[in-house]
Amino acid sequence: MYHSLLKPDLQQMLIETDHSGVSEFCDVLHPAVTAEVLEGFEVVEILEVLNSCELLKQVQILEFLPLPLQLSLVEDLERNDRKRLSRWLEEMSSDDRVDLLSRLSDEQVEGLLPLIAQAERNDIRKLLSFPEESAGAIMTTEYALLPENITVRDALEKLRKQAPDRETIYYVYVIDDGRHLLGFVSLRDLILAKPETVLTELMKRDVISVRVDDDQEFVAGEMQKYNFIAIPVVDNQNRLVGIVTHDDAMDVLEEEATEDAHMAGAVAPLEDSYLETPLFTLLHKRGIWLGILSSAAVATAAMLRQYESVSEAYTWMILFLPLVLASGGNAGSQSATLIIRFLAVDDQQTQSPHLRLARRELIMGLTLGTFLALIGFSFGWMFVGKVEGIVVAVTVAMVVTLGTCSGAMLPILFRKFGMDPALMSNPLIAAIVDILGVVIYYSVAILLLGRVEPG
Amino acid sequence: MYHSLLKPDLQQMLIETDHSGVSEFCDVLHPAVTAEVLEGFEVVEILEVLNSCELLKQVQILEFLPLPLQLSLVEDLERNDRKRLSRWLEEMSSDDRVDLLSRLSDEQVEGLLPLIAQAERNDIRKLLSFPEESAGAIMTTEYALLPENITVRDALEKLRKQAPDRETIYYVYVIDDGRHLLGFVSLRDLILAKPETVLTELMKRDVISVRVDDDQEFVAGEMQKYNFIAIPVVDNQNRLVGIVTHDDAMDVLEEEATEDAHMAGAVAPLEDSYLETPLFTLLHKRGIWLGILSSAAVATAAMLRQYESVSEAYTWMILFLPLVLASGGNAGSQSATLIIRFLAVDDQQTQSPHLRLARRELIMGLTLGTFLALIGFSFGWMFVGKVEGIVVAVTVAMVVTLGTCSGAMLPILFRKFGMDPALMSNPLIAAIVDILGVVIYYSVAILLLGRVEPG
Repeated sequence: MYHSLLKPDLQQMLIETDHSGVSEFCDVLHPAVTAEVLEGFEVVEILEVLNSCELLKQVQILEFLPLPLQLSLVEDLERNDRKRLSRWLEEMSSDDRVDLLSRLSDEQVEGLLPLIAQAERNDIRKLLSFPEESAGAIMTTEYALLPENITVRDALEKLRKQAPDRETIYYVYVIDDGRHLLGFVSLRDLILAKPETVLTELMKRDVISVRVDDDQEFVAGEMQKYNFIAIPVVDNQNRLVGIVTHDDAMDVLEEEATEDAHMAGAVAPLEDSYLETPLFTLLHKRGIWLGILSSAAVATAAMLRQYESVSEAYTWMILFLPLVLASGGNAGSQSATLIIRFLAVDDQQTQSPHLRLARRELIMGLTLGTFLALIGFSFGWMFVGKVEGIVVAVTVAMVVTLGTCSGAMLPILFRKFGMDPALMSNPLIAAIVDILGVVIYYSVAILLLGRVEPG
Repeated sequence: MYHSLLKPDLQQMLIETDHSGVSEFCDVLHPAVTAEVLEGFEVVEILEVLNSCELLKQVQILEFLPLPLQLSLVEDLERNDRKRLSRWLEEMSSDDRVDLLSRLSDEQVEGLLPLIAQAERNDIRKLLSFPEESAGAIMTTEYALLPENITVRDALEKLRKQAPDRETIYYVYVIDDGRHLLGFVSLRDLILAKPETVLTELMKRDVISVRVDDDQEFVAGEMQKYNFIAIPVVDNQNRLVGIVTHDDAMDVLEEEATEDAHMAGAVAPLEDSYLETPLFTLLHKRGIWLGILSSAAVATAAMLRQYESVSEAYTWMILFLPLVLASGGNAGSQSATLIIRFLAVDDQQTQSPHLRLARRELIMGLTLGTFLALIGFSFGWMFVGKVEGIVVAVTVAMVVTLGTCSGAMLPILFRKFGMDPALMSNPLIAAIVDILGVVIYYSVAILLLGRVEPG
């Protein structure tokens, strides 16, 4: 929208080396807007713009830039201005900093750590140690903390001191001397309470928390379920180690949805957005799956070869081969899509009602199969003849039922074996159904039209 | 997890009509947890449980129940306890209330409105009037408001009064007498500021807001971009009419992702979750697409009929028909998946770089096509012969390139014409590529193996 007007403005200021203009520009706009404008700039230009702002603003804008661009800036500063890089890394919020550092090689990280104060360094090492998809990897260690035996007045006073470098002060956690999580209180409750109330009376003790090794997707799901702004993360001894905030939960939800969408289309998940992913990586992520699917298609060809004499006797069969296979594949894709999304969104914790699912899908397969069989029969009759129409119809009904059931059950099976159900992509379901579809098509033809003596 | 233990507990209390036990149960647990436990209960049991709690708690739990269950409860109360229903509707938060009422028929709503106080009634009528997918349909009218010329001390005092029935008080909006949005201040800033500071000095004036008729997906995207807890919604004269909060934005993101996933699998989007959708509705949502796809398959059959004499001369061609068609369909599904997700997530506002996309996809199509052509050639040669292998290879290369380009460009075209790019489902791409694939396969065969005289 109005960014298209902002970009030339900023570029003009750069040409005129109007530092105060640039600084005002960055002060007035939300850092996310500035970051968006800067995305089209060269690395040197971005550094020049940031140079005109005060440190806090620089870091705020940096955190809103896409990760690959952040990396380019860091690599430039690593060579040319290590002092500034050191300030950036110290000032960044702990979760964004680790996101950035986790993209660098171990050697690069070790080279950068001496630039950072000791306390921050320990924080970085700890956060970097958590597995990529865990709560620990997205949490921030900058949360607001209070002891239990103080009054609301003192609590607000303490919060005022903590506020400037905490990710949120709207939820405050109460811990004991051993950092065990005792309770939680919202800023809303603090504001509403009488100043002399003691925190122990006010705080909620049934705190919903997640474990540091819980999956990110589970964490985001919990936050969504409870409408939380933040959720506390504890270790296996219920000691508070961090919080995950609503914005990170939203990013996780979207990343997981993207990953699932890509897998449904038989693309191995990408780390960055489509345009930020190098062509070679994309080729690799697509080629792997296309190779696997081609092997399945070769198996279908081998299967068709078994029936070569039938094909030669009933040459009309080729006409409806795509229809027969597509019907099964399409019905299977639909079932897999519905079940995979159901497992991802509605059924993260509870034991899923497999029997009910299987019954529903079986009924659907039979009904949809009958419907498509009618279409198949009509055109089979019209293009070839009545008996041939029946062959097509019977095959379609069976293949659709089979496709529906396997599309529904394979993702569930995948999960049972600890694999991601989303791996069951639409093309993979189609490829599996293809092989079986050929067997059904030819078996039905032999059964209804008579066996053909081999050559 | 531990809900499996809670359910029998609660059921036991119901059997023993232990009202105080039930009430304590609901007080201790988060309303979302109670709601989850209640999901497995009968409507009369749920009403009995809620009956033991105080009104505010009843409504909190109600709001966490799935919509179809909320509807069953409302319909029961409509017949048996209109007074309680009236209290519920008055106490519910404005956005959840409208979500519920929008599922009822106009007559039902008109029947319920007299149960509600006049002010709330106007609020409901206004919110119900916004289109389903708009910001207006998910916003709440319970936001915190301040005039501009007061001190921070007075502001906090006013906020304390507003807090109990506002969805959030962490972001506070500043308006003039005509309700025009002037600025915004966070509770964090208020807490940090000196009590005598005047709000005009503290508030941010470059407020990022959305319009009441903006699409929900855009609203959620803006909140995600700026990491907002809430975003103000204004009318076309910049008058504040509501706010959308982070939890609703998260729900929108997830709903849109589910809708896109379903469309990618050729299922018309569902309103409720898979298990909550009646079988008949599912059959309808799937049947429509299967019907369309079958018609496309019939077109493929008709096309194959044009080449009947070629099929009869080169009977081996049937072996590689599934492989040829699947290669194109799979490559096309991949491209469509990548582009649709890119358009949905990364490219909501900006003019997308179509030329760059087209060039990338063309290169990918040619590279992947060459790779798959090699597989096709090997097995064509192995199963039939060298020239036949070349026919398969040339076809695969062309079909994959065509599939990739159409998979990438059709979603973009769809959007150009104001349609949802996600309509370009994987099976639809495959169906389109099938028809063209047949033409290419036979044309290449005729070209390389010689024309066959008809009949």
